[in-house]
Amino acid sequence: MQSLTILKIGGQVLDHAALLNQVLDAWSNTPGHKILVHGGGKLATQLAEKLGIPQTMIEGRRITDDATLDVAVMVYAGLVNQQLVAGLQRRGLNAWGCSGASGNLILSKKRAPKNGVDYGWVGDVIAIHTQSISWMLTAGICPVFSAITHDGQGHLLNTNADTIAQSLATALASSFPVKLVYTFEKAGVLLNVEDEASVVRRLTPALYDEMKLKGQVHSGMLPKLDNAFAALQSGVQTVVLGKADVLIELLDGQSGTEISL
Amino acid sequence: MQSLTILKIGGQVLDHAALLNQVLDAWSNTPGHKILVHGGGKLATQLAEKLGIPQTMIEGRRITDDATLDVAVMVYAGLVNQQLVAGLQRRGLNAWGCSGASGNLILSKKRAPKNGVDYGWVGDVIAIHTQSISWMLTAGICPVFSAITHDGQGHLLNTNADTIAQSLATALASSFPVKLVYTFEKAGVLLNVEDEASVVRRLTPALYDEMKLKGQVHSGMLPKLDNAFAALQSGVQTVVLGKADVLIELLDGQSGTEISL
Repeated sequence: MQSLTILKIGGQVLDHAALLNQVLDAWSNTPGHKILVHGGGKLATQLAEKLGIPQTMIEGRRITDDATLDVAVMVYAGLVNQQLVAGLQRRGLNAWGCSGASGNLILSKKRAPKNGVDYGWVGDVIAIHTQSISWMLTAGICPVFSAITHDGQGHLLNTNADTIAQSLATALASSFPVKLVYTFEKAGVLLNVEDEASVVRRLTPALYDEMKLKGQVHSGMLPKLDNAFAALQSGVQTVVLGKADVLIELLDGQSGTEISL
Repeated sequence: MQSLTILKIGGQVLDHAALLNQVLDAWSNTPGHKILVHGGGKLATQLAEKLGIPQTMIEGRRITDDATLDVAVMVYAGLVNQQLVAGLQRRGLNAWGCSGASGNLILSKKRAPKNGVDYGWVGDVIAIHTQSISWMLTAGICPVFSAITHDGQGHLLNTNADTIAQSLATALASSFPVKLVYTFEKAGVLLNVEDEASVVRRLTPALYDEMKLKGQVHSGMLPKLDNAFAALQSGVQTVVLGKADVLIELLDGQSGTEISL
């Protein structure tokens, strides 16, 4: 069975045209089944600013009121998603723009207010409907997911793109051998956060425990890595973390951090 | 074989929440295969205004420069499309948002400047790839098409929603018995444009010729009706024109104008 690669890209790719082109080139030439998941980048913030919609961030998370949700849907599910699809089509990859609402592919639940903070129209994934996704993959189609989902009650929900990638990987792990690749601002998991050369090339549960004991895991990395190990425990074969600049090497296991059990 | 109904809705539905809800109720209860095609309504114009993007109209057609294309993609392929999908999902219909770029479903060609007028990023449909659309239909999915297509060269294109509906109907006519329904501001084809009660209930080629000879066809209706007859000649079974307010009656043949050969 052909393996499935799920790649998540965020603002550090989407906001830089030259890098984005390089990533789309590499991605369109990647063999096997594949799914692209994208965040939004700076565009949503810029559009909200132009429209005079005040943006409230609490602990690094955007509060999604009615107007901010509309902006997110327009930018993520609209402009960014369709431009990625058109760019991949030009490269001969049969990309297909998807949101979680389309085909009820990703069902979410509106996040309940917590500790007095109401995040608004933010959704947490509760179900992935894999049948249509598997159909696309076996038909040679590359689904391109924005981070917009729905609650089945008529509401669209702003969802974390990392979580979408992980949920897709976990849900599809029983049908395909899955490699989950997160591009981010670092070259990988670093032994010393100040030193980009200190990349841990292969992270195992034992090494991770050791690093945590020694206080070598940056607090911002903890949830990312905990999620990675949770995905592996759910049947995902490999999780890779690294820089989009070297996507080909990342996909080949020549760069970044490869996490496996 | 189950018949296929293709419904096109425009601003007169999208801009009125109560009517839109009524249409989505009726549509979700419509039996058989179905495809929804939508325009954009006032939202795109309003967003362009808020963003200070000047809109140029020539002979009722919007000139689509770079900034206007982005607005069209955000509003049509993003917000309007996804809200329709979520609204139909809530009603139990497995709707799926599509653009022409997704899956290369609708390939267009950028319109060449004509008589000194450059329409910008406007596309004319050149190919419909029916295989994936047929898959969705037989899987019980209702594709919801925005009027955004692509040229296969990486450019998104703003396309006329009436044309998209007609092109889909024509392309799918060899696979399904197709009924093509256009909602618009009139109760149907009128013998007297001032009198909403003068609806022609059934329009045949002979009657159409007679009406044209007598000067009874409003100039704005000529291209719509010429296109309807072209669709019928290409194998579409029926074209229906009428008001969205009475969608159930329209779909049942109890209202509006039914056009057939």
